[in-house]
This record gives sequence, structure tokens and C-alpha cells, in this order.
Amino acid sequence: MASGGGGTKPRTPQAESAPEGPVPVIVMGLGFIGQEIARAALQSEEVEVIGAVDRSPSLAGRTLTEVLGLPAGTFKVQPTLSQAVGRRKGVVLLHATGSRLEQVADQLLEALSHGMHVVSTCEELAFPWFHHPKLAQKLERAAERSGTALLGTGINPGFVMDRLVATLGQVCGPVRHAKVTRMVDAAQRRPALQRKVGAGLTEEEFFRLVDQEGLGHLGLVESAALCALGLGLDCDDYEEELTPVFAEEDITSGAWPVKKGRVAGIHQVAVALAEGQERVRLELTLAVGVDGAGDEVEVDAEPKVRLSIPGGLPGDRATANLVVHAAPRLAAADAGLLTVLELPAGR
Amino acid sequence: MASGGGGTKPRTPQAESAPEGPVPVIVMGLGFIGQEIARAALQSEEVEVIGAVDRSPSLAGRTLTEVLGLPAGTFKVQPTLSQAVGRRKGVVLLHATGSRLEQVADQLLEALSHGMHVVSTCEELAFPWFHHPKLAQKLERAAERSGTALLGTGINPGFVMDRLVATLGQVCGPVRHAKVTRMVDAAQRRPALQRKVGAGLTEEEFFRLVDQEGLGHLGLVESAALCALGLGLDCDDYEEELTPVFAEEDITSGAWPVKKGRVAGIHQVAVALAEGQERVRLELTLAVGVDGAGDEVEVDAEPKVRLSIPGGLPGDRATANLVVHAAPRLAAADAGLLTVLELPAGR
Repeated sequence: MASGGGGTKPRTPQAESAPEGPVPVIVMGLGFIGQEIARAALQSEEVEVIGAVDRSPSLAGRTLTEVLGLPAGTFKVQPTLSQAVGRRKGVVLLHATGSRLEQVADQLLEALSHGMHVVSTCEELAFPWFHHPKLAQKLERAAERSGTALLGTGINPGFVMDRLVATLGQVCGPVRHAKVTRMVDAAQRRPALQRKVGAGLTEEEFFRLVDQEGLGHLGLVESAALCALGLGLDCDDYEEELTPVFAEEDITSGAWPVKKGRVAGIHQVAVALAEGQERVRLELTLAVGVDGAGDEVEVDAEPKVRLSIPGGLPGDRATANLVVHAAPRLAAADAGLLTVLELPAGR
Repeated sequence: MASGGGGTKPRTPQAESAPEGPVPVIVMGLGFIGQEIARAALQSEEVEVIGAVDRSPSLAGRTLTEVLGLPAGTFKVQPTLSQAVGRRKGVVLLHATGSRLEQVADQLLEALSHGMHVVSTCEELAFPWFHHPKLAQKLERAAERSGTALLGTGINPGFVMDRLVATLGQVCGPVRHAKVTRMVDAAQRRPALQRKVGAGLTEEEFFRLVDQEGLGHLGLVESAALCALGLGLDCDDYEEELTPVFAEEDITSGAWPVKKGRVAGIHQVAVALAEGQERVRLELTLAVGVDGAGDEVEVDAEPKVRLSIPGGLPGDRATANLVVHAAPRLAAADAGLLTVLELPAGR
């Protein structure tokens, strides 16, 4: 037992039961996140990128290699999914075209009808039963009919406030309460995200945009539902709140300067309750100039556990990798509409 | 999106596909960990304790209620598994009788032959292909023949240095290196564990016991193999090293006093390499009087991620809960010999 014991190469059982070779994938949506997904997929030995789809006229006729600026094959980006579908079986669509399920449902249904599995960054798809129970049922039936699997994932929803918490909660007995805090410095993220959180707006402009549903982070309440489910909590009520965070001084670290007193970003809270009692609390701060960025998970149970990720998990890159790693798992999964809680730990 | 949105109770798809009611379990081995498992099982709504087995004559004829000192039914602890087996189908055996696979393999095979699923704390079962490839194959075939599932788990191996790391690694691209450090104050653990790490011994006594294989933590190299596998690393060599930690001053916090200069516990390292290059490094310090107890995970990849559990996950209680939560998952799993990497995140 002391030293040594080396020289052995253990058999790896999963490798034997996995499908032969990399899983073929098509990337749909070549915005910022879609391009990150394409890059992550090209780096991975688990998948093989065999096509790309984006309806943007500016990409028409270009190859993925040209779009990304790195070797990605000679195929062209197609404007529609049906033009990208080939004869390969077991293809997984890596889908990143929108956050709202109603906007992307037709794309998802089309992919399922082609016999493709789908991993999507659509935030509402992470737990579609919450806001769109009928649409969720329709997607579930379509997936079952085509014998394919469908999943919504990303860093949030999909990991840091739900899947990771449920994993940590495996060491706990019955859970009394779980709290997750995520503080993100939006200045380190893409300009579109800084705009999404209202950086630079006045309070009045902020609330006008909130009313038009143009601001804030989508998917927090979906995370709360997933978190409760993953911790075995039978919650019957959910609440969500969005408030602005104001700049306490001039902030120049973002994509544009934000004056003291203007909106720096958002503080968003989702809560899950059971019989009137709070059981899950998710707090997300997403603002330029945030001090002390990081993720914290606390589960109050026997034993009490606390987990800390100093600096926080980086959103965009992490989302891309989560999507890519899910692809082979979906290709091997039972047909249907899955959640991240059903994904295994390993690659 | 602002406030409100409450009042909804989302449908929970997993709950619908789960088997009806709690999963029947029998606890085998009522030592310290077995009793913790029994207590955790009695607290859980996921399982129903229907029997207990321990060969110790001191427990003969007593009920589990008497042994635990809390309500646990009227059935008696049976000296052998065959005496505890009833007519229930889909029973999961929660097994905690030993760390070495060769010592417990007959018990596991007997349970499988009765058509039971098995979750065991046997450290070597966490990745049995490492030290016992033939026995692993025998167990795998027996499980497949009986249509049941078999798993080794616990906090370590089974969680903090493998499953949790693989989960965190889901946000990463190709992994260059992973390091896990776990520092445990053995004074906070049971006396048997303090003895197992050599607390109070002289250096000479320590190494004599190491040679007799009576010291140290079993399962660290199994964790290294699981960790590598879960991070997609194809490692071909493993090394393990055990050194004593000496008391820098008199330590009185443990089950017995440890004089300055005597052994306080162990520092154990397991390393996984690929083509001569270190890819996974697990460092475990298990000693009385440890300062700065805690667990740290670092994954070097794009992105680099670091996770910290201040104080560290408490071993015994966590192991018991992990065993209990695995039971319903095994009852629903495909037949065979599983690893924790295949377990989903949620309950």
C-alpha cells in the first residue's frame, strides 16, 4: 500500500459501452454563444462537427471555417436546418438561437422530426414545465415519437444553481433549505449581456424596459424548480424579483462607461416555497464593476454543507462546454425531454 | 418578469417516472458506518428499511430498533443475508461490511443471486477494475445474470475526489490537469479511523503497520482512476504514496493524546499519468489536530476552475447519505456493475 502500485492501466467500462467514435453534431445559431459552442465542439474528441446552420444573410455561403477563423471543415453554413440535414444517424443538434421557448419551439420540433437529438441553450427549456407546460408536453411527445432526446442546459440555468447544487446535496439528508448566490462582473462578459442587464440606464429607463420584458436574466425560476426537484423538495410556490443595482461610483471597466448613480446591472432573486415556507433561494447579481465575483452554495441539512467557487464559473465558455459534453449523453439516453438532473457526472 | 410569477406548481417529470413508493432496502453490516446508513435510510422518504443483517453474536436476537435506539420496525437483525431475504422484489442491499473487495465479494455475489441490487461502501468496489479485474468481471456478470445493479460509493472514494470533480469538469474543455486536496481532522472522526491513520504511533511502528497493510486509506487510487475517467483523461499509469504526518506539538483533541513527534496521521497521494505526464493528483491528509480542514478541487483547462469546501465534507454522515440516495437510482438502472460517474445529479 505504501508507494508504488503503478504500472496498471485499469479497464474503463464506460468507454466500452459508449457508441463507436465521436458523436456527429450540427451547430445551429452562430451568435456569440453558438460560435463558442462550435469552438468547444471542434476541440472535443467526443463530438464531430458535421454542419452548421444560421439564418443570418451575412453568413450565407460562408464556411464554418471562415466564420470562426479556425479549421472547421469545408461545409457551408446553411440558412435552414433542412438544408444542413444529411444522411447521418444519431446526429445531435447543438442549438443556440434564443432564450424563449415559444420563439424556438418550431426549430426544436423540426430537429426532432428529422430524428435528431437536441441540446439547446434555450433557458426556458431547462425546465419547460414551469412556464410552458403544454409546449413541454408537445416537445416531450415529439421526442418520444422520433426516439430522440431533448435537453436544455447551460451554466445558468443548467449547472451552477441547479445541477451542481443537486450533486452537492447527495451528501445530505433531508434538506431544510438551499441557497445559491452568484455574483458576476458583467464587465468581463460580452457587450450584449451588459446591455441585457441595463448597464448605463437610468432607473426610469430600467423599469420601462423591465415592463417591456427586455431586461433581466431568463431561467432563474427554472433553476429554482430544478434545484428543488434535485434536492427532493416538493415545492408548491415560486416567486421571482428583479431590482436594479446602481453604480456607487463611475465604472469604466465595461463596454461603455457607467456614471455613478446609473444602473450597473441587476439583482435577481428566485425563491421556491413549500406550504408557505422558503426552501430554495437563488440570488443572482449581474452587473458591471461587481466586487467579489463568485458562486456560493449552502445546503442546510444533516450535514450542513457549503461550497465556494472564488471568481465564479465563467458563463459563456462553461455553457459551450456543458452543451458539448451533453451531446454523447443524449445520443445514449432514452427518448424524451430530459433535465440536467438526469445527466451523469462523467464524460 | 419583475416580481411575482408565483403560484405555479410545475409538474415534476422525474417523480412520475420513478417507481411507486419508497424502495425497499436491507442494511447489512451494523458497524459504525452501517448504523449511520440505517439512520439515514430511516430518515429518507426514498427508501423503506425492511431488514438488517449482521453476523455479530452480540446483535443476535435484537431488533434494529434496539440496536439503533430509535424506531426502526419490529424485525430482528439476522446473522446471515439468506435469513433476511423475504419475498419483496427490487430490494436494494445497503452493504457496509468491509473495505477490501476479496473479503466481501462472496456477500455481494450472494446478494446478487437473491436478485437484489447492491450499494456498498467497500472502497475497492468504487472502481474494482483497478485492483481486481477478474473479480470485477465476475461481479459484473453476476449482476447482469440476475438483472440487478451493483455500485460502490461513499464520500471518498465515491464523491469528493471523483464524482464531484467530474461534475465540475463538465464546464471545462479538454483537461490538462486536475488536483484535489482533502484535509481531514481525524480527531473529529470515530476512534477506529484515528487508529487506522496511526495516531500516536512512533515512526517505526507506523511503517511496520504499513508493511502489514494495516494502515492508510483504501480507495485513493480508485478515486484517481474514476477522476481521470470522469474528466475524459486516458491515463495509463498510477502511483500511490503514503507518508506519516508527525505531531508538531502535543495533541489532545483526539480519542487519545498524541505526543509531539509521534505520528498524528497520514498524508497519502495518488497520481494518474498519461504517457509519463501527471494528469490527476489526489492528496489526502487524515490526521488528528489538522489545521485548515477542507476540500479543494482545481481543474486546469479552458476555463480553469477552482472549488472550495471550507471545513470539508463530513465523511461518515455524507457516506451514509450517498449510499441511501443511490438506492432508488440503482433500482431504476440497467443491470451491471456501475460507477458513481454514471449516477445522475438529482434525487
